Amino acid sequence: MDTNYPSVLLEKAVNEFSKLPGIGRKTALRLVLNLLRRTEDEVDGFANAISTMRHEVKHCSMCHNISDTDVCPICSDPRRDKTTICVVENIQDVMAIENTQQYHGLYHVLGGIISPMDGIGPGDLEIASLAERVGKENVKEVILALSPTMEGDTTNFYISRKLAPYNISLSVIARGIAVGDELEYADEVTLGRSILNRTPFAN
Amino acid sequence: MDTNYPSVLLEKAVNEFSKLPGIGRKTALRLVLNLLRRTEDEVDGFANAISTMRHEVKHCSMCHNISDTDVCPICSDPRRDKTTICVVENIQDVMAIENTQQYHGLYHVLGGIISPMDGIGPGDLEIASLAERVGKENVKEVILALSPTMEGDTTNFYISRKLAPYNISLSVIARGIAVGDELEYADEVTLGRSILNRTPFAN
Repeated sequence: MDTNYPSVLLEKAVNEFSKLPGIGRKTALRLVLNLLRRTEDEVDGFANAISTMRHEVKHCSMCHNISDTDVCPICSDPRRDKTTICVVENIQDVMAIENTQQYHGLYHVLGGIISPMDGIGPGDLEIASLAERVGKENVKEVILALSPTMEGDTTNFYISRKLAPYNISLSVIARGIAVGDELEYADEVTLGRSILNRTPFAN
Repeated sequence: MDTNYPSVLLEKAVNEFSKLPGIGRKTALRLVLNLLRRTEDEVDGFANAISTMRHEVKHCSMCHNISDTDVCPICSDPRRDKTTICVVENIQDVMAIENTQQYHGLYHVLGGIISPMDGIGPGDLEIASLAERVGKENVKEVILALSPTMEGDTTNFYISRKLAPYNISLSVIARGIAVGDELEYADEVTLGRSILNRTPFAN
């Protein structure tokens, strides 16, 4: 579509917004016009929050999660179990697991999963630093919490080989029927695994 | 949901994004993490484009469209028919009509429509400035191009009374079956109007 923007400044702002994932040009225009209706201070607050974040946010030197400090609040919390490391793909996964309040160990954020299709190999991920951490520190268990996809399984297998020299127990999160799901609509692989990996009935 | 962000800077940026219309906290996080993967220069470019736009964009003193200059390119274009003014709700409508390349007159952007439910009265809109323009300049026709809703009809009626003292022809854009639409699925009001407002058959 050959859209004529009435202002070059407006067009530039729309261009910037439409570079974001899932934001088309019509949505970008709607967002920009919303900002235009706000006060200058509000818009400067928006722009500064984003710019400051990009310049000042760090990655935790231990788990590679996003952090404001050199070591993140989870890694530096003395109440967390430092013998257990949960390996996840990205920071959203850390937040999702933290929200369950069921896990009290540490994390290791890979920054992606092995995906030859997207040109992502083991060297692009924080796998060497995971092996180093396991070798140096008193780690007893590593939990692999990656997505149950081909790429996730490949990454799990690669990590298991890298960690083979160390005396730790390696586990993966349980696959099975999600709480609230109907059995008859579950796919065969999931249903099959949920029978193989059945757990003792607890009353 | 009680979400624990790993960084205060990240949380601030997510808060700012989620103030935008149609952007929830999960989407905001996805957008912020996308920005975090870009270079500092790119992110500064994003922030500056938005801040600069808010500070420097003007409204055209004639038609109240957004503009980089005091009078917008449409109002200052000598090839446009200055005797015809098309009244629209907002700048998206100007862009939509410009894209048809069927209209060569000027515009007048109201900045909204009369909506008592939202507390928007005639005084909040550029209606007085429209009457002033019609009184001062050599205007022959005013075209009302507002949405075919209760609010649009109310606004049309209010404007028609304000412009009654002036010797101009007043028209509204045609309502009818959209090009490509099936007759049987059209609503009754639209179909009824399309019969009443039939046009001569042109071969």
